[in-house]
Amino acid sequence: MQLPKTRQELARFIDHTLLKPDATAEQVDRLCDECIAHGFAAVCVNPVWVGRCADRLAHHEAAVATVAGFPLGASLPETKALEALRAVEQGAREVDMVVNLGALIAGDRVAVTRDIAAVVESTRSADPDALVKVILETRALTGEQIVAGCVCALEANADYVKTSTGFHANGGATVDHVALLREHAGRMKVKAAGGIRGLTTAMQMIEAGADRLGMSASVAVVEELVEC
Amino acid sequence: MQLPKTRQELARFIDHTLLKPDATAEQVDRLCDECIAHGFAAVCVNPVWVGRCADRLAHHEAAVATVAGFPLGASLPETKALEALRAVEQGAREVDMVVNLGALIAGDRVAVTRDIAAVVESTRSADPDALVKVILETRALTGEQIVAGCVCALEANADYVKTSTGFHANGGATVDHVALLREHAGRMKVKAAGGIRGLTTAMQMIEAGADRLGMSASVAVVEELVEC
Repeated sequence: MQLPKTRQELARFIDHTLLKPDATAEQVDRLCDECIAHGFAAVCVNPVWVGRCADRLAHHEAAVATVAGFPLGASLPETKALEALRAVEQGAREVDMVVNLGALIAGDRVAVTRDIAAVVESTRSADPDALVKVILETRALTGEQIVAGCVCALEANADYVKTSTGFHANGGATVDHVALLREHAGRMKVKAAGGIRGLTTAMQMIEAGADRLGMSASVAVVEELVEC
Repeated sequence: MQLPKTRQELARFIDHTLLKPDATAEQVDRLCDECIAHGFAAVCVNPVWVGRCADRLAHHEAAVATVAGFPLGASLPETKALEALRAVEQGAREVDMVVNLGALIAGDRVAVTRDIAAVVESTRSADPDALVKVILETRALTGEQIVAGCVCALEANADYVKTSTGFHANGGATVDHVALLREHAGRMKVKAAGGIRGLTTAMQMIEAGADRLGMSASVAVVEELVEC
């Protein structure tokens, strides 16, 4: 693994994220402007902000990412699929969906796979190149359940597995969970998110196999990097 | 206000609630059985559990309540409306939806009212007697914004205004917010939820005007009541 050596290289790993429910238009606009200024991979916002971000990021490389069934994952597949579809129609190029955690914990792989596949299919129907990231909420799972989640995401044709929503009481990404995802993700990429607030942690996540980092403290983290 | 004097009277105020994302089927079944045994008004569960609860509570008075756009409220109106519709079709008789907090904070009453109305209309289309409760997440709002939320909920023809999701970082229900909702709710009822874990708090909420209490510690709370 080649670690990023410049701020610009590091920024390409980052989904600049604002998912708190009481976010304001001003905060969302600033998120987009910071995304452009620093060269982050994407902004990640709630569905109600997708259209606004797509307008503001038009003619820029950065993608709009959004969420589906977030953060509990306990909505019906049809609801998550509609949420993803409308988001992509409004300009999102990436959808971070939350798995049906209860079904994953119960070992019901058929239900978990169907749930993910519903989102993948509806997302691709609107944009064949749009990415689907599957949030497993690893801190709520055993190692075996995390591996099962990877199997389901692979079978459902997702693009990424992702550690955490950042909203679960047990906490967010750990280096061990990122490594476990990397080991079982096959052709999929890995996103680490939840509680990544410093450069050291960010670099550890990348070293463990993360292709993308979800962060709110993105600007502070890239500015921590001293370029040689 | 007549305070409940018996456990049975108190139980009729309570939505027995389990909304954590990693709830298991066993926990959901126990929730239903406790609901029947103690005479709670309803169970409140995530959408994926509605069908299971409706089966288990069939031939009992208790209702199945569920949530829409929960807990962030930042989904599109169409997504919340579909979520509510499918829930009612599967047997839910009450839908607790979260407002578009960003729009409410921005003072965009038209957007807030439309969002609520979308859920009310889709819910009523499946069951004209189903109830819609509007979660304002009062701890994220100023007093003025809370009052505006009541105006929007009234205009959208909702049945309840409700303080909190129980998931917001600022906390849950306060007695002052319940009193403020009661003052501005007009014909609507008031539900207090979030952080109500003891009998004293429960009684204070009822005294302040709550018609319904959302609680996870429901069994412990009713058993605290010493019947004279």
